[in-house]
Amino acid sequence: MAPTLEGSARDLWPDFPTGPLSRYRARASFSGAELLLFLEGEDVVRFKKTIFSALEKDPLFARSRGADLPLEKYRELSFLQCKRVLEYGFFSVEDLAASPLRVWALIHCLGMYDWSLATKCFLHLLVFGSAVYNSGSERHFKYIEKIFNTEIFGCFALTELSHGSNTKAIRTTAHYDPSTQEFIIHSPDFEAAKFWVGNMGKTATHAVVFAQLYTPGGQCHGLHSFVVQIRDPKTLLPMPGVMVGDIGKKLGQNGLDNGFAMFHKVRIPREDLLNRTGDVTPEGTYVTPFKDTRQRFGASLGSLSSGRVSIIGMSVVNLKLAVSIALRFSATRCQFGPTEEEEVPVLEYQLQQWRLLPYLAAAYALDHFSRSLFLDLLQLQRGLMRGDHGPRQAELGREIHALASAGKPLASWTAQQGIQECREACGGHGYLAMNRLGDLRNDNDPNCTYEGDNNVLLQQTSSYLLGLLEHRRPDGAHFRSPLQTVDFLEAYPSILGQRLTGTHKADWLDSAAPLAAYKWLVCYLLQESHQKLIRERRSQSSDFEARNNSQVYHCRSLALVFLELTVVQRFHAYTHGPSVPSSLRAVLGRLSALYALWSLSRHTAMLYRGGYFSDEHAGTQMESAILDLCTQLKDDAVALVDVIAPPDFVLDSPIARADGELYKNLWNAILQERGVLERPSWWPEFSGNKPVVGSLRAKL
Amino acid sequence: MAPTLEGSARDLWPDFPTGPLSRYRARASFSGAELLLFLEGEDVVRFKKTIFSALEKDPLFARSRGADLPLEKYRELSFLQCKRVLEYGFFSVEDLAASPLRVWALIHCLGMYDWSLATKCFLHLLVFGSAVYNSGSERHFKYIEKIFNTEIFGCFALTELSHGSNTKAIRTTAHYDPSTQEFIIHSPDFEAAKFWVGNMGKTATHAVVFAQLYTPGGQCHGLHSFVVQIRDPKTLLPMPGVMVGDIGKKLGQNGLDNGFAMFHKVRIPREDLLNRTGDVTPEGTYVTPFKDTRQRFGASLGSLSSGRVSIIGMSVVNLKLAVSIALRFSATRCQFGPTEEEEVPVLEYQLQQWRLLPYLAAAYALDHFSRSLFLDLLQLQRGLMRGDHGPRQAELGREIHALASAGKPLASWTAQQGIQECREACGGHGYLAMNRLGDLRNDNDPNCTYEGDNNVLLQQTSSYLLGLLEHRRPDGAHFRSPLQTVDFLEAYPSILGQRLTGTHKADWLDSAAPLAAYKWLVCYLLQESHQKLIRERRSQSSDFEARNNSQVYHCRSLALVFLELTVVQRFHAYTHGPSVPSSLRAVLGRLSALYALWSLSRHTAMLYRGGYFSDEHAGTQMESAILDLCTQLKDDAVALVDVIAPPDFVLDSPIARADGELYKNLWNAILQERGVLERPSWWPEFSGNKPVVGSLRAKL
Repeated sequence: MAPTLEGSARDLWPDFPTGPLSRYRARASFSGAELLLFLEGEDVVRFKKTIFSALEKDPLFARSRGADLPLEKYRELSFLQCKRVLEYGFFSVEDLAASPLRVWALIHCLGMYDWSLATKCFLHLLVFGSAVYNSGSERHFKYIEKIFNTEIFGCFALTELSHGSNTKAIRTTAHYDPSTQEFIIHSPDFEAAKFWVGNMGKTATHAVVFAQLYTPGGQCHGLHSFVVQIRDPKTLLPMPGVMVGDIGKKLGQNGLDNGFAMFHKVRIPREDLLNRTGDVTPEGTYVTPFKDTRQRFGASLGSLSSGRVSIIGMSVVNLKLAVSIALRFSATRCQFGPTEEEEVPVLEYQLQQWRLLPYLAAAYALDHFSRSLFLDLLQLQRGLMRGDHGPRQAELGREIHALASAGKPLASWTAQQGIQECREACGGHGYLAMNRLGDLRNDNDPNCTYEGDNNVLLQQTSSYLLGLLEHRRPDGAHFRSPLQTVDFLEAYPSILGQRLTGTHKADWLDSAAPLAAYKWLVCYLLQESHQKLIRERRSQSSDFEARNNSQVYHCRSLALVFLELTVVQRFHAYTHGPSVPSSLRAVLGRLSALYALWSLSRHTAMLYRGGYFSDEHAGTQMESAILDLCTQLKDDAVALVDVIAPPDFVLDSPIARADGELYKNLWNAILQERGVLERPSWWPEFSGNKPVVGSLRAKL
Repeated sequence: MAPTLEGSARDLWPDFPTGPLSRYRARASFSGAELLLFLEGEDVVRFKKTIFSALEKDPLFARSRGADLPLEKYRELSFLQCKRVLEYGFFSVEDLAASPLRVWALIHCLGMYDWSLATKCFLHLLVFGSAVYNSGSERHFKYIEKIFNTEIFGCFALTELSHGSNTKAIRTTAHYDPSTQEFIIHSPDFEAAKFWVGNMGKTATHAVVFAQLYTPGGQCHGLHSFVVQIRDPKTLLPMPGVMVGDIGKKLGQNGLDNGFAMFHKVRIPREDLLNRTGDVTPEGTYVTPFKDTRQRFGASLGSLSSGRVSIIGMSVVNLKLAVSIALRFSATRCQFGPTEEEEVPVLEYQLQQWRLLPYLAAAYALDHFSRSLFLDLLQLQRGLMRGDHGPRQAELGREIHALASAGKPLASWTAQQGIQECREACGGHGYLAMNRLGDLRNDNDPNCTYEGDNNVLLQQTSSYLLGLLEHRRPDGAHFRSPLQTVDFLEAYPSILGQRLTGTHKADWLDSAAPLAAYKWLVCYLLQESHQKLIRERRSQSSDFEARNNSQVYHCRSLALVFLELTVVQRFHAYTHGPSVPSSLRAVLGRLSALYALWSLSRHTAMLYRGGYFSDEHAGTQMESAILDLCTQLKDDAVALVDVIAPPDFVLDSPIARADGELYKNLWNAILQERGVLERPSWWPEFSGNKPVVGSLRAKL
């Protein structure tokens, strides 16, 4: 369908060139332009366009084709680009509160261009900046301006060489010395060196350092954060007592300099303790507005969630890029056909559709979830800013924490698996670095482990659900939460009795059917996990053991399935809501159904085992519906990609340009590489210096 | 247990240093040395040791810690190392036939060191060499000596830019010109350029080129292979009419130079047609010993299989390396614990065991399968060399082709998923390049798509099985094959009637139970696929459509499950055979059961759906048995790794050295990197050149 934009919005949809992708575009059941505006709104679409075209026009962002950039050069480039982003002033400090969706969009636009750049900016401006702003007080606001004009450059130093997930075991210390009114920051040994810290490797002048706070007399008050200067901003040389360096090459994001630091009795002013949750008086007395450490910990959950919510968004961006590449490739790559003369695009094969279209649907469904959870988080943060410490606020914090702690695993794993499937679905050409699927996989990789290993994080979510089950609320209910994600569980005994009866394949073509199955599944796993825990607690020596032995097949599955349900539920409600234009209902409904069914189909064994499915047909109907939905969506696939793919310059994959000229673009890109047709510099090693076979055998 | 080697074999087991891994080594239920000798035999163990120590002693193979090697340098290094391997003369041309297991071991040893080197050698010596030797005749043997002394350097050029899997559609032409007795090799356009060819980018002087053979008068005789000189060995400059270049950076194996070539009417002597299956007389008449092209194609299946069998072996090597790294890490990384003071190795967590130990079992099971299939292939090749064209030989060729075509997908995917799991199971440290999991993933990546995309290859195996079902043999049987992998299917109607009844968890602790379930599963999927094909053939316009619509959930699953059964069956027989020393029976039996159950557990839905499983207990017992086996194996894990891991120098992962000094080794490796503590060369860009925030806003 042709775009139907009018007036000022007309320039927001690209004028795609005629070419090999035109036939699919012509077959689309909807207008891409309309869907784009419905999903993102004109303001964000226009903002993104501004960012993309600024990058494209600026030679500093020129793509270095087939980049073989040395580490040092890549890091320099990312830093220069980060400064340039500030010069463009895409957003101001005020926007952080006023237009958070623009900030969200900016990070994603930069990430679509290059995650090294995006993460570098994000860690400095938002992670370091928020840590100072949210954990500090007025005395620290002086740092905020310095952050924005890069007078200082920041990093966030929590993880140590030997401790990551177990943050309580962090061993860096901060002893208060009242005689000089200073804290003494110290790393007891190299195993307690701060490690993995983004921006610390080469750039950062200041770090938010987490350390165990000790007051005179030796009492430990637990983990607190401090602003510690680690380098001289004039020279970028380390400060006395600080040993700081670069941890070297990583699997991805190598424009970002991850580093380590050891502190040898480094003295910092008392005021550089970030004192929102606890402070030390000049004389050395510890004071805190919180009654106990548990409450103090609860107050910090919000900031933990924000990292996880951000990672969900980043993962979704990667998935969008990957499916865009693989689907444009599949629509133009022809291989085999009904006759020897006629070859068909590989997208016409059911197998290829089944490999890729569910990930396209996942990109849409998770994108919606990610945005909606971001908005929930903003609600929480506004409450914190208002000083709201009421019970709803606390419950909202716990719910968001539970959603983010399983959302991050689900999104990062879906992206990881999706990128791998996309890379393989492009065959050999997916293995060529310039087509970018490798970089996407590598740059997405840390999403699976940072801010907590995925498997460890899932325990937060299952603990939340099991905790609700175990503790009745004052009103007698177990399950009731501000965002209502758990409310259906109040009826869990009766849901558990439900069985799938007499469905037809047609019933599965809407997300309502998988949604019902998902609700049963969550109830089933909640009950199974609860019982398992009880059994383990009876037979094990400790609660620690009991919990450890209840993860596999129980709590871990519970957390994942609950989160899948939440994603499905939200996307179902969104795509079936009254605001959806009628012209978009069909395609959005199919995406919703496909994501729901495909996700659910990984749990078919459990549906049978628990009795929700009983006959052979239930399983076959579900599979058959998945394939039908793939068939229904394959002609919309290219248009759906056009909605989520950035411009060619940003997507930067010769096999996936919007003109669809797969081979011309690929061939062109290869011939543009440096030295492509030259003989190697080491040719005399072949021509003159012949090996004598077996001449070194005596050395063996 | 302490090693029990005596006499000459005593030096074959390393004297592991005392350290953090000692406690696990002491708890092992078996002797690693005994298992090593049982699995590999003294000759191969000694041979591998010789290779490894030659590499370690030679500075040309020194590890470049945190390598940030430019592409050109890496390619030069791999070439120099390839020559050095020849100088060591680890094997001779004669060994190819006399000691094939040594050749197999050599490739794996080189691959454990670096796949770029191994593939470079392998493609030149074995792939190019075998193509000339097996497809040519005496007139081509002159090339063989030149290969071994690197007078020439070879590559194998089949794939084109626009055609890979569909080899019949290859468009390079070879027209015979009787007036000069030459073939004219020509690429009609750039889409027909040879592409992806390993060694072609910078090094190769000669290529085996596949082209459509035309005789005077214009008759096409299909695809044939030709030796074509592409570069002058004296200068490494391209030959006239040949445009040859490097396709650039790939996701992995960047020491190998993959390239492209276009031929502009390049004339080669008539004799350079590799003429085993067809020849052209000087006058221009096509002659062939085969009656039809189908038969000619059948004769070439053996060589297709050998590529796939090799890839199975390569994938297994990668899996071995990855699990070695992750398990040594897990045995030494402590995180959390029953109390705040006491932390336990993450290997003690059931979740970590469940993530990693099945892949350890898979490494053992697939290693056995890979070696046994290699021996089957040798049997086939010896028959070919003897000139055996009998029906058993043909059937053996088809059976091995079917096993290799699904074995390659299973092994490469298991390795890919296993490496990813290992990388994540090492948390942040798995994301650090120097720990090697990224390189393993990247170097394993092409195994999933080359020699045929995995999903496409699986169709060969399902077609083989369905073909047997549809065509009765002369003796009335459907299923009977030289290696007996399909013989059990003769009873498929009765197997289909089997149901799992009254098992106990203990029954699942041996691989016999999953083996029986697997047999039922293959029968079920064979029947389902057969019926699906019949239905589709009735309703679809063409057989092409019918086959395409029967892959997902049917033929594709059939092929994979059949291959899993074969792997399980072979490993079960091996580990339960009379030659197994009694001291090794327990641990090998557990590995066999764990691999079988864990593989089978991915198909639980189908077991329920088809009625093999009926009650809830069947599923829970199976899961429970998997976890029990993990518990039983976790104390053996380090010793099992010691058996398959190469020496530290070759494994090259600071977090996985045999001494288990995780943090010391990691810290040491990081401090050895170049410029680790230096400020960046671009420090004035931070200190002096400050951005003016928003100064470029007007440009937006």
